[in-house]
Amino acid sequence: VIRTDALIVGAGPVGLFQAFELGLLEINAHIVDSLPYPGGQCAELYADKPIYDIPALPRCTGRELVDRLLQQVAPFKPGLHLGQEVQQLRREADGRFAVATSAGTQFLARTVFIAGGVGSFQPRTLKLEGLDAFAGGQLRYGLDDATHFAGQHVVVVGGDEGAIDSALRLARAGAQVLLLHRRDLPDAASAAFRFIAGQATGFAQHGGRLTHLHIATADGHTLHHALDALIVCLGLSPRLGPITQWGLALERKQVVVDTTRFQTNEPGIFAVGDIVHYPGKRKLIVSGFHEATLAAFAAAALLRPDEPVLLQYTTTSPRLHELLGVNIKPIA
Amino acid sequence: VIRTDALIVGAGPVGLFQAFELGLLEINAHIVDSLPYPGGQCAELYADKPIYDIPALPRCTGRELVDRLLQQVAPFKPGLHLGQEVQQLRREADGRFAVATSAGTQFLARTVFIAGGVGSFQPRTLKLEGLDAFAGGQLRYGLDDATHFAGQHVVVVGGDEGAIDSALRLARAGAQVLLLHRRDLPDAASAAFRFIAGQATGFAQHGGRLTHLHIATADGHTLHHALDALIVCLGLSPRLGPITQWGLALERKQVVVDTTRFQTNEPGIFAVGDIVHYPGKRKLIVSGFHEATLAAFAAAALLRPDEPVLLQYTTTSPRLHELLGVNIKPIA
Repeated sequence: VIRTDALIVGAGPVGLFQAFELGLLEINAHIVDSLPYPGGQCAELYADKPIYDIPALPRCTGRELVDRLLQQVAPFKPGLHLGQEVQQLRREADGRFAVATSAGTQFLARTVFIAGGVGSFQPRTLKLEGLDAFAGGQLRYGLDDATHFAGQHVVVVGGDEGAIDSALRLARAGAQVLLLHRRDLPDAASAAFRFIAGQATGFAQHGGRLTHLHIATADGHTLHHALDALIVCLGLSPRLGPITQWGLALERKQVVVDTTRFQTNEPGIFAVGDIVHYPGKRKLIVSGFHEATLAAFAAAALLRPDEPVLLQYTTTSPRLHELLGVNIKPIA
Repeated sequence: VIRTDALIVGAGPVGLFQAFELGLLEINAHIVDSLPYPGGQCAELYADKPIYDIPALPRCTGRELVDRLLQQVAPFKPGLHLGQEVQQLRREADGRFAVATSAGTQFLARTVFIAGGVGSFQPRTLKLEGLDAFAGGQLRYGLDDATHFAGQHVVVVGGDEGAIDSALRLARAGAQVLLLHRRDLPDAASAAFRFIAGQATGFAQHGGRLTHLHIATADGHTLHHALDALIVCLGLSPRLGPITQWGLALERKQVVVDTTRFQTNEPGIFAVGDIVHYPGKRKLIVSGFHEATLAAFAAAALLRPDEPVLLQYTTTSPRLHELLGVNIKPIA
């Protein structure tokens, strides 16, 4: 069990800056995220796309923004627990929160910060009744090791770069590949694999094994395509997930917070960023940074009720310089 | 008279970002500042000192921060009116605000944004009764043209870089210079001018002219120092100034705003940054950026009451790309 002052749910830009602001107030933090890398939507949806409205960064990509925030928070060494979703949260008798993730990591946290953005990212599924029974076996969401499929008949469903790349990797590994996407893909023309514009409408099974995929082609035919494996590459879609079960007040699927502390209706559980609702809320990163800042001050007041939480400036405070590891003058 | 959608009082980081956020919402803005350069406290108090808590800027000086914000707002070409203080503000019959500055610039603005920081910076005065009568003549605050004082006996009062630099420039221009500071200044040792640690305690005048400065030296003597001119270089000190006369609700010398619109008690007058008060307020630049963002959205709703104010993202909106002048794809 990891004991921590603060547990941050979400390693997007606001979650990372939350850890930085807590660090300035000498509150240590661990961060959990369902994605296997930090950055949240910035990493998942616009890693290479420019953002123009981060204050004093006239232009930066999602990846650059995340790299800068990781560099900024580095002096405080937050624990990063990636590729796992926070699932259970329970308040202990002493007021601390017992938190468990899908990977079995356990925390005892004095405060919790939900910086969950649009929710945790989950692979989009192919909606065919009964198909899920094959998940993890013949049905996979995304491709790990292409060599595993050498000599097999594989159908890849999807039309984005990830889907095309998966089809190519499978073909190079010696699989017989069909790429299936609902509409024509000019970029997918390849001698390495077959492409069909159409939709999966059903499947056949025999002896507990998936044998055929039924396809309605865009030009009006029906195919029964024999296959050994089905790789679904339809991207990720966010869902709010287990935090809806934690007894927090919600409004239009957003977590309700006050604008003084950015605290939820549960004392000690704060929420910041795109996931929150308050009058005037706009889903902008610039607002998340402010929310994380005030939430950090509120948490400091909660964790250290006997001392006033003073505002110190990073430009002038020797204590903050020490914490940040900067500007230490050598002894003359 | 300059007609504008928005008049921003203060060209510090928050005032500059206010103009940027208004620009994204297609609201044009003019900015007024009492300092002769943009940047506010960042330029005046810590131009060369590092700031560590601007999100995604692990380290930047005040000057760098201001340069980055100027670059970011550049596509919107806000009018910059520097070295002048906003003095009068009056609401016209049609609801617009008639604003006049100390330099005589006049505006008719549909909305006003007070981003006044700690107030407008004014030179710190030497507190000797009756001395102010010589201001602009033998008494100057700061040194413009040193050559004007060639051959004269000049006393420079102050101990910062600006004071020492003024003393040097005067000496090089052929003046007889005494630098007076309340305590010893090891950095001020110079063959070019005389230095005394001490305080001005009074003065003598004859025929309407300042003739002597009375000095109590740090080692206990009293001097009557003959002089032709007195240059006071005691730095700048902020004061809230004329905005206290505009009928705005204040609390502890701060302008009271709500956290939904960051509007004052006067509809159409918004306030953002260090000058405002609301529950939980912390005087941090990161909060000013958020406040300016929500104030811009509120102003858009006020200026265009018939259309909903949609949130568009700079990463994806073709309209915002057009406004920002970026990423325009050539016609194939």
